[in-house]
Amino acid sequence: MEPASTRDGIAMVGFDADDTLWRSQDYFDEAQAQFERIVSAYVDLSDVGRRLYEYESRNIAVFGYGVKGMALSMVEAAVEITGARISAGDIHRIVGIAKELLRHPVEVLDGVREAVEAVAADWPVVLITKGDLFHQEQKVRDSGLADLFRRIEIVSEKDPPTYARLLEEFGVPASRFLMVGNSLRSDVAPVLELGGWGVHVPYHTTWAHEAEAQLRHGGERMRAVAAIAELPQAVRELDAIASGAAR
Amino acid sequence: MEPASTRDGIAMVGFDADDTLWRSQDYFDEAQAQFERIVSAYVDLSDVGRRLYEYESRNIAVFGYGVKGMALSMVEAAVEITGARISAGDIHRIVGIAKELLRHPVEVLDGVREAVEAVAADWPVVLITKGDLFHQEQKVRDSGLADLFRRIEIVSEKDPPTYARLLEEFGVPASRFLMVGNSLRSDVAPVLELGGWGVHVPYHTTWAHEAEAQLRHGGERMRAVAAIAELPQAVRELDAIASGAAR
Repeated sequence: MEPASTRDGIAMVGFDADDTLWRSQDYFDEAQAQFERIVSAYVDLSDVGRRLYEYESRNIAVFGYGVKGMALSMVEAAVEITGARISAGDIHRIVGIAKELLRHPVEVLDGVREAVEAVAADWPVVLITKGDLFHQEQKVRDSGLADLFRRIEIVSEKDPPTYARLLEEFGVPASRFLMVGNSLRSDVAPVLELGGWGVHVPYHTTWAHEAEAQLRHGGERMRAVAAIAELPQAVRELDAIASGAAR
Repeated sequence: MEPASTRDGIAMVGFDADDTLWRSQDYFDEAQAQFERIVSAYVDLSDVGRRLYEYESRNIAVFGYGVKGMALSMVEAAVEITGARISAGDIHRIVGIAKELLRHPVEVLDGVREAVEAVAADWPVVLITKGDLFHQEQKVRDSGLADLFRRIEIVSEKDPPTYARLLEEFGVPASRFLMVGNSLRSDVAPVLELGGWGVHVPYHTTWAHEAEAQLRHGGERMRAVAAIAELPQAVRELDAIASGAAR
């Protein structure tokens, strides 16, 4: 095989981590359900989850993403939603939810190792994940997948400027970069916008924030697959188009 | 001038950020004083600060460094120290302390810009800082110093393996790398241990955790300066020794 770097077409494949390589949103959903049970002992509201999301969304600008920011938003929301009636013991349980989430063992999703290995056999692969540095590093380490990736990049936001900066560091033009992930908003749309390629691997549950996506550009440079096992074939197909397009 | 990369001696200078380039520990000290005032309304204890530090130390393994982890430790400590008597309103104030800290404008320390510029005129400089990715990025941006640095690396721990990984990415051997910072533990000791060079710029206040340092190796490859203005001269002196030592 001709080495990827001297061919046209895809020269590097990036992978998202949470809910692409391993389970994540399920634990957040469960954490939110626990939060709702705690708060519901004080108030009879049907929209505790929606209210929590309002606090989280507002606080992203000051806390960023990740479990610790979520927990602080939960504490704040619990105090305000209950009119400051929540007990210290219940606040403690909320901090406990965060600790449990941070300590949760990593569950690599079915078929992921095989799919990443298959892609890594033909292209250099990198991992690009968003969120809390400390927690993400821990998950990468615990996943047993770290060795497959040439670079592991933990970023605070997955937007076009961030991808552009990383691609410059990697020395790969966007037109030869393909990103794989479960979030249209964070993984696929920004890379398409830069002129790159994307494979969307939907996960069964998505955080409201990540579901807010607009695909304005480059839909023709993207594939959606129903299962990660279909990823290597999708990458090969897009690579063939990219090679053809470059001629 | 001969380009640094083809000479012997120092080939790259790294800078710590918090309490080296800009004020940080002062705000944490003030946050802790606020915490002590809140908790002291419930219990008559002289060692609230020491107790909080115990929670923080124990929680570093699960929260990592940074304001958000500190805030969650504060909430936990407040509940347990007060025997769960603390009010929801006071818990809310503790979350408010964290938000205030995260939103605090960056105050670059006196003489820092001039010193970094002087060093950057002769050597490529990089910034290596520990803690919360989101908060650190924000501070780097707000400091107005970002353009001086060739690379900005935010890491979860500043230990010898982390420095070794970064130096490999930079393509600089430890024997030609000099690190500048206020923490012997995080900035100077690990780089000396790898065979590198260090300049210690003490700050008037140090977090108990960072004060726990052991300098076992390489004291002869280190200088301490009383003020950042003395940094360029200290780097030149160590560079001269490094150049000589390499011959």
